[in-house]
Amino acid sequence: MTGAPEPEPGPPEHDRVSRAFLTRVLEPGDETGGRWVRLLGAGEVAHRLRGPGRALPGVSDTRWAGLRARAERADALRDLDAARRAGVRFLVPGDTEWPGQLDDLGDARPLGLWVRGRPSLRMWALRSVAMVGARACTEYGVHMAATLAGDLAELGWVVVSGGAYGIDGAAHRGSLGAAGATVAVLACGLDRPYPRGHARLIARIAEQGLLVGEFPPGEHPTPSRFVLRNRVIAALTRGTVVVEAARRSGSLATARAAQRLGRLTMGVPGPATSGLSAGVHELLRGEAVLVTDAAEVVELVGGIGELAPERSGPVLPRDLLEPAARQVLAALPAGRAAAPAEIALGAQTTLDDALARLYELRALGYVERHGEGWKLTRQAMTSVRAEAGPR
Amino acid sequence: MTGAPEPEPGPPEHDRVSRAFLTRVLEPGDETGGRWVRLLGAGEVAHRLRGPGRALPGVSDTRWAGLRARAERADALRDLDAARRAGVRFLVPGDTEWPGQLDDLGDARPLGLWVRGRPSLRMWALRSVAMVGARACTEYGVHMAATLAGDLAELGWVVVSGGAYGIDGAAHRGSLGAAGATVAVLACGLDRPYPRGHARLIARIAEQGLLVGEFPPGEHPTPSRFVLRNRVIAALTRGTVVVEAARRSGSLATARAAQRLGRLTMGVPGPATSGLSAGVHELLRGEAVLVTDAAEVVELVGGIGELAPERSGPVLPRDLLEPAARQVLAALPAGRAAAPAEIALGAQTTLDDALARLYELRALGYVERHGEGWKLTRQAMTSVRAEAGPR
Repeated sequence: MTGAPEPEPGPPEHDRVSRAFLTRVLEPGDETGGRWVRLLGAGEVAHRLRGPGRALPGVSDTRWAGLRARAERADALRDLDAARRAGVRFLVPGDTEWPGQLDDLGDARPLGLWVRGRPSLRMWALRSVAMVGARACTEYGVHMAATLAGDLAELGWVVVSGGAYGIDGAAHRGSLGAAGATVAVLACGLDRPYPRGHARLIARIAEQGLLVGEFPPGEHPTPSRFVLRNRVIAALTRGTVVVEAARRSGSLATARAAQRLGRLTMGVPGPATSGLSAGVHELLRGEAVLVTDAAEVVELVGGIGELAPERSGPVLPRDLLEPAARQVLAALPAGRAAAPAEIALGAQTTLDDALARLYELRALGYVERHGEGWKLTRQAMTSVRAEAGPR
Repeated sequence: MTGAPEPEPGPPEHDRVSRAFLTRVLEPGDETGGRWVRLLGAGEVAHRLRGPGRALPGVSDTRWAGLRARAERADALRDLDAARRAGVRFLVPGDTEWPGQLDDLGDARPLGLWVRGRPSLRMWALRSVAMVGARACTEYGVHMAATLAGDLAELGWVVVSGGAYGIDGAAHRGSLGAAGATVAVLACGLDRPYPRGHARLIARIAEQGLLVGEFPPGEHPTPSRFVLRNRVIAALTRGTVVVEAARRSGSLATARAAQRLGRLTMGVPGPATSGLSAGVHELLRGEAVLVTDAAEVVELVGGIGELAPERSGPVLPRDLLEPAARQVLAALPAGRAAAPAEIALGAQTTLDDALARLYELRALGYVERHGEGWKLTRQAMTSVRAEAGPR
């Protein structure tokens, strides 16, 4: 009964292939499709979509014909192979890296997630906040999004957004600029970053953070896909901050999705005379909480959820950490904060990889960020010292 | 049992004189003094303050000496006479014009109110909103206060504020500029309008609206008197709107007083980067409700309180209206809105007097404002037509 536990067996490979196939055939968030998968399993649903006759209930003739046409053109093995070559992995429920909170979406849960980037999506999502808002935002909105995201990064929080122009971009840039952790959830294949004007930004997020999407390679975004993408942003995170939004904007849809999922929604106020704050003010007249800085955001989202590593100490025994994370942990000096570059050097890895691991270790309660530097938490000190020996 | 009812007997004249005397001796909101008056009556308290020995409990020797010194110099008959000559009346509890909602202040209820202006304070207070905020406000704050106050006036609501520089002044001016009804509650004698730079504005409020204060002629404002004045603003009105306020500002004290009294508190958001909105945002993170226009304010305050004349029709029979109000009511045409000037002409009175009566009649459910014009409410139509006969 002693010694390291057996590695968790992941989901069978045929399930992954079937789910990859289904991400090509079904639109994300399709609850009918989600129900089929829940009741029959992904393999059986894929089989019936490819077989003859009308073997699945609850859709119109037109829609059935559309699904069949897509199924005929789908080639999951080719998609998985193309993705792998592009550095993209395909996560499915049951994977160690699968973020469990997506289960809150019920039958609208993603069938799988295409992911690019070093960090563990599951770890990063544990301490993450969504930041969304208008594409055509004001200077004020850009300033607030960038400042909030940068300050959240300094407090050890991951910023999740949609990669779009305006508030999304400002949030990603604010986090990246503070050597922070940021996740872009795209409404298209990860090989087709959208918008094109953000190609460089999105490439940088893939290097320093994470790109996530429900779409196999080559898929383009559509208006409805943007809306469906929003539910993933809302579900992944502990809360959603809306920075600027006109009435009836898509960002409000993300906020309402977050509310329906029991996540916190927050809004940054603006002048009552600004149409780009009118949607936020509408939210603030409802359940959303007014926030003006990162400390207020963290005060709200920091206390919720079952996992509160900063209080209970590390939640995962050191033995169970990935080797790369263990190496970074071992590179942290015992009594002081160290800069990420120093830690990367000690762990014999790149700066980006070190940052990825540091935010994972942050989510697990091992380390915390102090301004530019990182240090071991008090709870982590003893075990690390014991194992690392004198330096 | 038929015919006009007996006029309500007001409070005895000696009670008025004693209370006028006490407004010179006690500071407003002094709960010890309020308790003495409640238990012994104003006349007895005045008598004991003037008599020999230490006949009232609950104050230190120093304070007692101070009260005695003030009592020796007080001359209520001279004050009442000076006030009358300046067009100032002194209201006491029991007067028809006394606003009953001040009872919510308990022993901190004003001992009496010095009032200057044509309208009935009681009637006007029925449909009133307080608007307060920073003295050193921004252009944005001035714009919001003036716009909100003007739009509230057009919706038939009375705007109450403190006559100060900044938000207060903008609120009064916004209401006056829309031919609206506004009340300034001063922290000094009404013959000493403060601040001096607002002498003309305050004179105009006395002409077109109401000046109110707890202080007899000649009294100067002090920092503590401003704070105590705020409780009257909060208690008189159905709700308080804070337009701009730094953290720890006096306007927040008014808002908190309003909350303690069960009144609605509202806040106008501003940029998160503005220190002059930080206090408002703090309120909005608590119980206060975010408002961006007059319609939102009215939606909130319009529904509360026992009196909701706009739904139940006139609350006071036409026979019981003051003659001046009855005359204005009779001057309203039956089927259409009329401008205040036309109504004043028909009622053979001045424009300011007509406006004063119109807002009284609005509070009673007889009339409503439509843009620049006024018309009879549907509920008022039948009775007025019957009595006025064909025109």
